[in-house]
Amino acid sequence: MNRSAFPPLNLRWLMPLLLALPLLVQAADPLPSWNDGPSKKAIESFVSAVTSEGSKDFVQPAERIAVFDNDGTLWSEQPMYFQVLFAFAEVKRLAPQHPEWKEQQPFKAVLEGDQKTLAASGMDGIIKIVGATHTGLSNEAFIDNAEAWLAKAVHPKSQKPFTEMVYQPMLELLAYLRANGFKTYIVSGGDVTFMRAFAEEVYGIPPEQVIGTTFVTQFQNQDGKLSILRTPKLAHNDDGPGKPESIDSIIGRRPIFAFGNSDGDLQMLQWTAAGSGKRFTGLVHHTDAKREWAYDRESKVGKLDKALDQAKAEGWTVVDMAAEWRQVFPFATATSGQ
Amino acid sequence: MNRSAFPPLNLRWLMPLLLALPLLVQAADPLPSWNDGPSKKAIESFVSAVTSEGSKDFVQPAERIAVFDNDGTLWSEQPMYFQVLFAFAEVKRLAPQHPEWKEQQPFKAVLEGDQKTLAASGMDGIIKIVGATHTGLSNEAFIDNAEAWLAKAVHPKSQKPFTEMVYQPMLELLAYLRANGFKTYIVSGGDVTFMRAFAEEVYGIPPEQVIGTTFVTQFQNQDGKLSILRTPKLAHNDDGPGKPESIDSIIGRRPIFAFGNSDGDLQMLQWTAAGSGKRFTGLVHHTDAKREWAYDRESKVGKLDKALDQAKAEGWTVVDMAAEWRQVFPFATATSGQ
Repeated sequence: MNRSAFPPLNLRWLMPLLLALPLLVQAADPLPSWNDGPSKKAIESFVSAVTSEGSKDFVQPAERIAVFDNDGTLWSEQPMYFQVLFAFAEVKRLAPQHPEWKEQQPFKAVLEGDQKTLAASGMDGIIKIVGATHTGLSNEAFIDNAEAWLAKAVHPKSQKPFTEMVYQPMLELLAYLRANGFKTYIVSGGDVTFMRAFAEEVYGIPPEQVIGTTFVTQFQNQDGKLSILRTPKLAHNDDGPGKPESIDSIIGRRPIFAFGNSDGDLQMLQWTAAGSGKRFTGLVHHTDAKREWAYDRESKVGKLDKALDQAKAEGWTVVDMAAEWRQVFPFATATSGQ
Repeated sequence: MNRSAFPPLNLRWLMPLLLALPLLVQAADPLPSWNDGPSKKAIESFVSAVTSEGSKDFVQPAERIAVFDNDGTLWSEQPMYFQVLFAFAEVKRLAPQHPEWKEQQPFKAVLEGDQKTLAASGMDGIIKIVGATHTGLSNEAFIDNAEAWLAKAVHPKSQKPFTEMVYQPMLELLAYLRANGFKTYIVSGGDVTFMRAFAEEVYGIPPEQVIGTTFVTQFQNQDGKLSILRTPKLAHNDDGPGKPESIDSIIGRRPIFAFGNSDGDLQMLQWTAAGSGKRFTGLVHHTDAKREWAYDRESKVGKLDKALDQAKAEGWTVVDMAAEWRQVFPFATATSGQ
C-alpha cells in the first residue's frame, strides 16, 4: 500500500461501537445448547467470579487451567470406547499380515465378530488387541492410521463419523472458557496420540494440551532416518489416580476447573476441588437413553458410582443430560426440556 | 464510568503513530547482548523467514515451537549441575534427621566436603544423593525446598544467586522468539519440578512449558488430605534420546527451533533438524574461560563432542561465547569482542 495515498480518517464513528461491544457480547448466549438449569448457572457464575477483576475470587489468566476427560465427557463412549473400536478395525485391516490371528484369541473373536468370546477375554484381551494395533510402529505411522480410520469409520448406532459423536454443549463450553482466558486441556485414559489425531480440529485443543495414556517410546536413528517407535511397554496409565499425577507432571499447575463423567475421573476432580480459592468440578451424568445413552453405577464402560456419591455429598455440579442439554450432538435436531 | 460524560474523541492523531510502529520496533535491537556475528545473523534470518507472511518458509504461529536445553544453554553448569549442588546442600540440611549418613557413603563425603571420595562415587553416588533428597516427599514440599535453596544459596565462584547465573543473550533470545509468536519450552535432563521453581520468574517460561526428568509419582489421599508423592523410581530420563521422546509425548509437535550445548542435546537437535521446512539448530560453545568457562570434548559436565562434529558437518549454528556474546550474565559488566 502506498502510504501517501492513505485517506485521512476520522475514527470518531468507532466510539459508539466500542462502547456497545460489552453489551453485544453479553447479549449473545455463549452456551445456547444448555437449558437454563443449575449446571449452566453454576458454570456461568463460576466463570464470572474468577474472571471479574476486583472480584475476591479473581484468578490470573495464567492460572485458569481447565481439564476435561474425553470419553463420555466430550464425546460418547458407548457401546465401547471409540479407541477400542478403532483397535478392532485395525485387527481386521492388519489380518492379512497376521495369518496366525485366525486361530489366536482374542484376535480370532474380533475377526469373526464373536462378541461373547471377546467379552469373556476381558481387559486382558483388550490389552492384547491394543498392544498389537497401537505399538511396534512409529508415532507418525500410528497417527496416520488413526486419521485414516476417523476419516471413514462410522458409529454403529448413529452411522455418523465418530468425530461427530461429540457433545455440542461441551464444544460450546470449551469455546466459552477459552474466550474467558482459560487454557483447555484433555486429560483422558485414551492414548495421547490417538486423541491428537482429532482434538485440534474437533475440540480446538492443540496437541500440547492433550494428556493421555502413553507407551514407552524409543528414538530411532537408522542411517539418519529418524523416528519415534512406540514400544508395547506402558509408560503411564492416565486413569483414576493417574490423572492428577499426569496433571502435576505435565502441566505443573493445579486446575481450577475440571469436568469428567465416571469414577476414572474421581481423583482429578478431588485434586481440582482441594485447591485453594474458588473451584469448579463437574460431572456429565448420562441420563438420556433417547438421544444418547443412560448409564451410571452398573455400567461396564464409564461406570459412575463413587464419583456420583462424592459429587452429591460435596455439591459438585452434576449435569442431567436429559434435562439440561437442549441438544446433544452437533447433528441432532431433537431438542429437550425447558 | 458515566458513559454520557465520555468526551467526544477524535482518534485521527493515532494514525501517524500506528504507521510508524513497525519502524520503531525494527529500530530497537532485540538482541543487544549478541555481537554482530554469524550466530546473531543466523537467528535473525531464521526468525524473519518463518514469520514473514508470504515467505516460502512461513510457519503458522501454532507450529513455532522452540526448545531449549537448560544446563549450559540457559544457565551455567560448572563446576557441577546446579541441581546437584542443591542435592548436596539438602544432604547437609537433612543430616540431623539422618545420623546414619555420618558413616554412609556417598553422604559421608558430602558432609565432610570430601571431593575425592565424592568424585570416585561417580554417577551411582549422585543417583543416591538425588534419590535421598528429591524423593519420598510430596511435590509441593519438594518445590518449597528448591525455592528455599534458590533464595539463599550462592554460586561458589561468582558468589551470585544461581538464578543470576543465567545467560543474558539467551534471555534476550527467549523474549525475541516469544515476541515473534514462538512458544518457548525447556527440555532438560534436570528434574522438571526443580526447574519449575524458577523457570517462570527467571526465563518467563511457565510450568506447562518445562519438560524434564521425572520420577514416578503417586496420588495420595490420606483421610481427604491429598498430595502427589515423589517415589524413587525414575519415570523418564530426559537426556539424549529421551529429549525427542518427551517432546513427542508431551508437546506432540516437532520443534522448528532448538538450542543445546552438549552431546545430551544431540538427538533433540537431530529431531528438530530433520523436520520438513526451514529449521534452526544451535549450540552454545563454551569458549570463554575469562567470563564463564571454556570446555567441550573432554569435559565431565556438559561434554560437547559428537554434537560439535555433527554441527560442523551440517552447518548448524555454533555460538562462540567469547566472540559472540557482548555480555554473558545479567550482572556482568565486562564486555567482549567486536
